[in-house]
Amino acid sequence: MTVFIGLLGCGTVGSGVVELVERRADKIAEITGLRPVISKILVRDIDKPREGLVDSSKLTTNAHDILDDKEIDLVIETIGGIEPAREYILSALRSGKHVVTANKDLIALHGVEILETAERHQVDVLYEAAVGGAIPLIRPLKDSLASSDITDLKGIINGTTNYILSKMTQSSISFETALAEAQRLGYAESDPTSDVEGLDAARKLTILASIAFTSTVQLSDVRVQGIRKITASDVRFADQLGYVIKLLAVGTDREGRLSLEVRPSLVPKTHPLAHVSESYNALYIRGDASGDLMFFGQGAGSLPTASAVVGDVIEALRNLQLGVSGHSQHVYANHKPAVPSRDFLPYYMRLSAQDEPGVFAQIAQVFGETEISMSNVLQTPTEDGHAEIVVVSHKASAEHIDTTLKRLRQIEQVIDIHTVMPVES
Amino acid sequence: MTVFIGLLGCGTVGSGVVELVERRADKIAEITGLRPVISKILVRDIDKPREGLVDSSKLTTNAHDILDDKEIDLVIETIGGIEPAREYILSALRSGKHVVTANKDLIALHGVEILETAERHQVDVLYEAAVGGAIPLIRPLKDSLASSDITDLKGIINGTTNYILSKMTQSSISFETALAEAQRLGYAESDPTSDVEGLDAARKLTILASIAFTSTVQLSDVRVQGIRKITASDVRFADQLGYVIKLLAVGTDREGRLSLEVRPSLVPKTHPLAHVSESYNALYIRGDASGDLMFFGQGAGSLPTASAVVGDVIEALRNLQLGVSGHSQHVYANHKPAVPSRDFLPYYMRLSAQDEPGVFAQIAQVFGETEISMSNVLQTPTEDGHAEIVVVSHKASAEHIDTTLKRLRQIEQVIDIHTVMPVES
Repeated sequence: MTVFIGLLGCGTVGSGVVELVERRADKIAEITGLRPVISKILVRDIDKPREGLVDSSKLTTNAHDILDDKEIDLVIETIGGIEPAREYILSALRSGKHVVTANKDLIALHGVEILETAERHQVDVLYEAAVGGAIPLIRPLKDSLASSDITDLKGIINGTTNYILSKMTQSSISFETALAEAQRLGYAESDPTSDVEGLDAARKLTILASIAFTSTVQLSDVRVQGIRKITASDVRFADQLGYVIKLLAVGTDREGRLSLEVRPSLVPKTHPLAHVSESYNALYIRGDASGDLMFFGQGAGSLPTASAVVGDVIEALRNLQLGVSGHSQHVYANHKPAVPSRDFLPYYMRLSAQDEPGVFAQIAQVFGETEISMSNVLQTPTEDGHAEIVVVSHKASAEHIDTTLKRLRQIEQVIDIHTVMPVES
Repeated sequence: MTVFIGLLGCGTVGSGVVELVERRADKIAEITGLRPVISKILVRDIDKPREGLVDSSKLTTNAHDILDDKEIDLVIETIGGIEPAREYILSALRSGKHVVTANKDLIALHGVEILETAERHQVDVLYEAAVGGAIPLIRPLKDSLASSDITDLKGIINGTTNYILSKMTQSSISFETALAEAQRLGYAESDPTSDVEGLDAARKLTILASIAFTSTVQLSDVRVQGIRKITASDVRFADQLGYVIKLLAVGTDREGRLSLEVRPSLVPKTHPLAHVSESYNALYIRGDASGDLMFFGQGAGSLPTASAVVGDVIEALRNLQLGVSGHSQHVYANHKPAVPSRDFLPYYMRLSAQDEPGVFAQIAQVFGETEISMSNVLQTPTEDGHAEIVVVSHKASAEHIDTTLKRLRQIEQVIDIHTVMPVES
């Protein structure tokens, strides 16, 4: 039997989906008993030249050709952004169509509305491709890890910033140079704000944390810090100390209190996350029974992301064939409070100060008085005659570090505190 | 509603399962609508003192108390080995009971018989815990990756050998010393043959390759080489060249011809598999659409392995509740032929020779004549007055390397060729 599919959007991911559904149709029919056929494709410009397997007779610029088509049982959304994607998806769900989407923004911001609508109409809405490209993350979190309480998530889930930080590390170049290169190669958009400020990672963390911690997580629960302030000297100091700098999305559940952060961090070179380079993504998970798990793979790209979409199509078709659609949604009734992290971590701080006798003693005294000991100190002269000082503290709470920073800023000879990052173990 | 479970075996994994089912019963009931209760436990010695949550009134030494109990709908097998586990599982399946097992030996050797029996009786048999402990491997391979043709598997799937090789690397000690330490700490058995000779990894590769390559793979299809011959000097030379030595289970599908090998290999320090240390396991997968994926986690241990078992229990209960049991089996009708690998890889060779003028020229000449060029050469004097020579070749086929080795052995001054390992990229 054939299942007709409507595809909304035919850009990078959409055209990959067209290719992959075509290529895998026999295999999917064998696995699920249902043959997927993309019968209509919504595009903005019907006359734009298209490569590959896109059949121009299927193109339409009118979403209603798909949403009102009673033959279509499944809609794949790869338009991205909030509107009109949200309206289209809600309309599809209301008319009993299953939905597969790669839209992280939409799920992060309107996930509850969409999942509840799907539940009400007993249809599936699946979004494995919204986070981590080809890497299966949502299904493992939902399924296998139901046997563990997840206490920690730690992920590299934004390819653009990981590319930039990898380049800064490999080639000892500045943030600006690395960003320009990423833009030239198409890894960063012309307006890179959403990526480099950590907002994209924050949206993905919202989705992952909801599932991992079985709570309705809001985007506003996530504290966000980007990578714009990271300099070549931070990268160099980190390297000397045995670390690499990564933009991490971190979520913890400590007895029902969540802490959710996106922030640059020092990752030990011996940690598996340290070796997730360029546009790869990875998610580290700690469960009370499972222990530490990591999932790694291509975080973006046409075919990798399409492979996650098609994986969801296969699940939706299998559910349809078995008559068990609409059971995979998870809207969590409880909203666990989000609080600043109380975990004790070492912190990396880079500051500049006047290169005068006694300055270092004053800095050391502040650490002593706030009862934070230093595990590593590096001091180097700068070109303009100042001293650049890097301190790595022993484990302390974020609150404790804040007090120390406030006291350090009161020292007259301290010119500026440039960077403060937690150190992962 | 309650589902009664019979547990066969209550050792390391079994007692973890008892603890975890108890701890997670509410959560599982919430997810699946069915409450799991372990009602009977088969043990060898009923009087043995047991810690934790094992209720002694549930113990029995007679398997028929479980297999003939009509109240029991699901049987968990954690005895290990072939018999009587095989007979118990087949009997359970024949009486319509679902089975979850952690038994890699049984699935590797009798998987087809067991899966066919389950299919005939429309019940589930699930074995996520058989490979990779807590790491979800079988479900991602089956589900998400149905959208990709998998061409390559590369895994560190034996914790004992990984522990030994990690210790040899970290502490520059011999294989024998590292093995003795592993035995002392309980990471290696008193008879370590199955682990150090690569047989355990070969069995797990048989299971993974069957699923990844959708073919009935036989254990005899796997070429196996263990780590007994790896010396401290191999580890040191590898390190100098930028590699670590890992026992890899490697499977490739080249247009329907499989190549399956377990063998020590040189892994570049920049490769994610290089950082899988001690008792961790990892599986690297390459799919035509998904690109490269890696799954990493605890490969053994009571609770990690139990978490995989309980994950399967949850799947079986969910299927039971939805009335869709018996659809997750995969017995593959086709048997893709297993052939020696024809992939071109660089090879590492360590040999000893008389430290005489002209010997090195002869060795270099053999490489020249067999048209294999050398990318790296290290020569060091040994304590007994010989020369130890390490050569890393450019990419060549295994067949080509065999010819070179044969020719090298014919050189009079070549004393021995100690180690030959492929180099991963």
